[in-house]
This record gives sequence, C-alpha cells and structure tokens, in this order.
Amino acid sequence: MLSRMAKVQQRALSRAYSTKKEKICMVGSGNFGSALVRILGRNALRHDVFDNEVRMYVHEEMIDGKPLTQIINETNENVKYLKGAKFTKNVIADPNLESATKGATMICFCLPHQFLKPMMPKIKAAAAPGVKVLSAIKGIDFDENGIVLISDILRKELNADCSVLMGANVANDMASDAFCETTIGYRDQKNGELFKLAYDDFSLKVGTVQDTVGVELCGALKNIVAIGAGFVDGLGMGGNTKAAIIRIGLKEMVKFCKMFYPTAGISDDTFLESCGVADLITTCYGGRNRKCAEAFAKHGKTKSLDQIEAELLGGQKLQGTLTAKEVNHILKMKGLEHEFPFFTTVYKIAYTDTPLSALTTTPY
Amino acid sequence: MLSRMAKVQQRALSRAYSTKKEKICMVGSGNFGSALVRILGRNALRHDVFDNEVRMYVHEEMIDGKPLTQIINETNENVKYLKGAKFTKNVIADPNLESATKGATMICFCLPHQFLKPMMPKIKAAAAPGVKVLSAIKGIDFDENGIVLISDILRKELNADCSVLMGANVANDMASDAFCETTIGYRDQKNGELFKLAYDDFSLKVGTVQDTVGVELCGALKNIVAIGAGFVDGLGMGGNTKAAIIRIGLKEMVKFCKMFYPTAGISDDTFLESCGVADLITTCYGGRNRKCAEAFAKHGKTKSLDQIEAELLGGQKLQGTLTAKEVNHILKMKGLEHEFPFFTTVYKIAYTDTPLSALTTTPY
Repeated sequence: MLSRMAKVQQRALSRAYSTKKEKICMVGSGNFGSALVRILGRNALRHDVFDNEVRMYVHEEMIDGKPLTQIINETNENVKYLKGAKFTKNVIADPNLESATKGATMICFCLPHQFLKPMMPKIKAAAAPGVKVLSAIKGIDFDENGIVLISDILRKELNADCSVLMGANVANDMASDAFCETTIGYRDQKNGELFKLAYDDFSLKVGTVQDTVGVELCGALKNIVAIGAGFVDGLGMGGNTKAAIIRIGLKEMVKFCKMFYPTAGISDDTFLESCGVADLITTCYGGRNRKCAEAFAKHGKTKSLDQIEAELLGGQKLQGTLTAKEVNHILKMKGLEHEFPFFTTVYKIAYTDTPLSALTTTPY
Repeated sequence: MLSRMAKVQQRALSRAYSTKKEKICMVGSGNFGSALVRILGRNALRHDVFDNEVRMYVHEEMIDGKPLTQIINETNENVKYLKGAKFTKNVIADPNLESATKGATMICFCLPHQFLKPMMPKIKAAAAPGVKVLSAIKGIDFDENGIVLISDILRKELNADCSVLMGANVANDMASDAFCETTIGYRDQKNGELFKLAYDDFSLKVGTVQDTVGVELCGALKNIVAIGAGFVDGLGMGGNTKAAIIRIGLKEMVKFCKMFYPTAGISDDTFLESCGVADLITTCYGGRNRKCAEAFAKHGKTKSLDQIEAELLGGQKLQGTLTAKEVNHILKMKGLEHEFPFFTTVYKIAYTDTPLSALTTTPY
C-alpha cells in the first residue's frame, strides 16, 4: 500500500503530466500568416507553457523546382511571401494538413476564407481534443440568411472556442519588427489570454477585448471605408474631406455591428482598439483597397474596378470590393440601405452609374 | 380704452418687434477665422433669423500702404490670410472692436487666446444683453490651479452662454468649399442649434453634441498626439506604427478628459465626432505640429524644437509644443505622469534628453 507521502508525489506527477505544453499550429503561410508565425516561433521559445515546435501548414508549391516547404525549413524564411524575414528554427513548414495540425492544442487560421471549409474535417480529426482556435482572417461570409462570421464557421466545424486577431498590421512592416499593435477578441478569457501570450512581443503589443464579433466585423467593414477614402484621393480632395469620410465610415461600422448583432455584447471600446480606429487609419492611408479605388476615381469611372484590380494587383483579389457588394446585398435584402447611406453610396459608385460626386453630396 | 382685438394686435406687434434678428460678429480674421466668416456671410443671407450684415473684427494692419479692412471691404477678400476666396458682400471688416461687436447677439471667437482678456471689457459693454458666444479657439490656458478652458474665460468675462466649434477644418481646403465636417459642442441646446444654423452649409456639415468640455479638449490635446505622429514620420517608421501611436494618443485624450472633468458629462460619442477622431487624423497626417516634429526627429534631436519652429514657420508658434509643455506641467503638479505615459513621453522626447526610441519602447 502506498504511503501518504507517495500518494501526494504521485498526484503531483500526474498533474505535471496532465499540464502538457500547448502545441501551436498556423494554418496559412501567406504574407500576414508568415509575419504572425514568425512571432509565434519566438514566443514559443520564450514561454514554458508552449511546446517549442510551431508548425505551419503550407499549401505546397514549387519555387525554381524546389518545394516551398523545403526552402522554408532549410532557410528559415518564406522566400515567396515574406522575403527577408527569418523565422526562428523551431518554425516547421509542413505541406500535409493532417500532420501539421496533429495533436495541436492551439490553431491559428490565416488564409482566404474560401479555402476553409474543405479543410475542417481533416483538422477536426487531427487536432487535440478541446483545441482552441484563433482566426486572423479578415473578411466575412454570407449565406441566404445574411452574414456568416468566419469565427462561427470555425466554432461550428471544429466544435472549438474561437478567438479573433485583427489590427493595424501591415505584414511587411511587422517583419522588420517595427512597433505595432493588434487586438485579440475573445469569448473565453483564459483562451484569449493564452493567445495573447503567444503573440505579445517586444514589437507587437496585443490588446484584448471580450468581444469577438466587433473585432471581426471591424476587420471586414474597414475595407469598405478604405474604398471611400480611395475615391477621395482619386478626386484630389484634401485632408478635411478624407477625415470626414473616414469618420462617417467609422460611425456606420459601429452602427452596423450594433444593429446586426444587438445581443453579442459589442463594446464601444472595441472601436478605439487597434482593430478599430488604428486598422481603419492604416487601411485608408495605405492598402490595396484604397489604391485601386483611387485609380478608379482618377480615371473618372471609365474603367471598372474589376479591370483596375486586374491591372494593379496581378491576380490578387480585393477584399473591400467583395465586402462592399455582399454588405449591400444584405442591406438591400433587409430594406436597410437608407440606414447606411455611406456603405450604400460607396457600393453604388463602385458598381452602378452613380457619379463620384455622390460621395460628398449624399446626406449622411 | 383699447378694444380687446386692438390689445391682441398690439401684443402680436410687440412680439414681432421683440424677435429681432440675430446680429453675428466674428472676432478674429486669421486663416481659420476668415474661412469661418465666409460661411457665416453666406448663411446670414440664407436664413431669415439672421441679420444680413456679418461683422468681422480685424486687427488692423497696412498692406502695401492700404489698411487691410479697407481692402477686405473693397475686394470682399482677406488678401493676407485667405487669399483667393471671396466673401459675400455682407461681410464687413471693422478695425474697431466696439463698433464691430456693438449690438451683436452672436459673437464667434477665432484668434490666439492670449489676445482675449484685454478685449473682454469692451466687448461686454458693446454686445447685446444676453449675447451668445462661440469659441473656435484651439488651445487651453493654465493657471496655478490647473487647466483653464477658453470657453470658461468667455463665460466668466462676458457672463454669456458659450458653445465651442472644433473639427477637421484646414482653412484653405474650406475656402475652396471642399466637403468637410465640424462639431459644435453646446451647453444650451437652443444656442447650439442656432450656431449650427449659422455654420451648416452645403460644404460644411455641422454635428452637435451636448459636451463643450470634451469638444474643446479634443481641439487642444490632439496637437500633442500630432507631435508623436511627427516623430514616427521622422524616424521613417511605417503605417502600423503611426496608427498605433495615434490610437494610443486618442486613448489618453479620452482618459485625460474623463479624469480631469469627471462631472462635465464628457460623452464617448464626442470622440467619434469630427472634433475627435477626424481632426486627430487630419492633424497627424497634415498640419504644422506633425511637420516640425518630423524634422526634429529626422535631425536626430540635434536641433531644438523651438529652433525648428523658427526655421520652418517663420515666426508662427506651434500650438502642440505649448500644449505638451503645459499638460506635462499639470500632470507633474498632480503626480499623474505615470497615468499618461504617451503624453509624458512626447513631452520628454521634445524637451529633455529622453531618446526618440522611447516613443516605441515605453509601455503604454
């Protein structure tokens, strides 16, 4: 029979065994995903709670006859999507979704959301039970009933708690360790804090709010505002007008969140976090949506936005034009276009014969 | 003895006589004051409630041997401070403070606040009883007890209700009728609405909030944030960092307002108005404070801010550096520097040997 002391020792051991280290995986290896995994790699080495190895699922492609995953693992650099920024050696690129997510207790998603759904069954089978997930995917989905949040897809398909990460985060600036901020919106505070520990860094300051919906919608809706800001730039109007348009857009972002998610606990503070006003500013002064909308206005609408997208972005698609279309679809469906005159005007200028001048003559 | 009917008629006449038209005067004729009076002139002609004539007190000076007021009244243009923008003919420049404000029922102030105090007795004697005033003066004053709001000086010295007007309003852009917004903060709603009627225009959209303190403090504090934003630009950091610094500054603006005026009814909405986030954006992307701070950081602090001011602004003084100094003085006096690490860091970089790197290494 075990002595009392031996029993205590056994229990302590078992506790130690049960507090296994968190195994982190990043699903996605584009520009932003690579910038994020670079920080995850550093932090996994810094904090005992994390397993040292951070896996990154990479959609395989050949670069000069060599698989991208092999190049990443040999050079510690994603030479295609984040050139010039080194990962720590504990970041392991893996072209196989099952082995990348196998046993993972924390999975981050950063890839175009249309790729998500077919991945879900494999990830669910491979991940550890009780896996916690985080979405850094900027965008929203839609079905016949209206908006579908990406985080809700992940929650449902993986039966997991899902946090979201959004902020003023231009990937190439992050890769040079320039100081920036981001916001993690959580439902389960413990999980939110754990993801904060995984991302907070000397160069990336993470703020948290208990509001996943507000954070996620900010990340999508700001792109509509950026199109309006691009119109202002293309029309050669000054800083007063641009600031007014950004502000009017922000007010409609707040209204949209509260009207469509009245019981989600949308917090006013969310809009003063990095995911709100800061991301909005960055997107309206830099960013591809702004740039294409500027060119569209400069050409006086003689070329379509789709044409300009094709010319300027070489195959990449704009998030903002898609979101503008889909948000307008919802507003029209629900008879709410008049409640959102700015979103509606941006859409109409972009896709109907409404003149550019409507941007500043519409009563907001 | 008068018949009952005659008495009713007499009373109606007397009422008509007592609803005299509002007489508007602008005290100040600089760049911004001239842009504002241009709109006041147009609106005085549009709305019956206003007397047609709008007077503008002009500190007289000679331009090529001719008094500025005479030039303004002959050409309908302030050729010195708002060249190229015509006033309507009903705007009358007057170099005499007493005659400019005589019988005025609505007086707007737009001039450096250090000129205010000596004017007060003359204006009080000349203005109509019950005069309503509005301050478009961006800045704050200080005495041995702490902050003194400009609107409070006007209230006290003129025994008048005072509204304030602040927003993303670069004067030269306003002069070309580019669309912009502004915010009027009021205490007395009726007066706030009257000033809104005087300023709201096809090109200038006026929002109102029942919060004069928040609106007025936004107009002053944003200039400290603009200095921080200028440091970011001078250091060549990217959009992520700039957005983070602007956001951190905005959060301290909100905190400062609420901590120093806990009972003033500071509204969260104020910061989402033109006076808040929009003016902040304009000031941090354009503006003289940003520009001088950028040069200061580019030179690696080898020249003082005062020296750069003198070189770049040809005699004009920065509002932001003054406000940064005075806010720091208050924070130090009250032992609150640690509660406002951003304001404190901006001050210390500008005026002590704290290195520029502190901007992004200070824990905010």
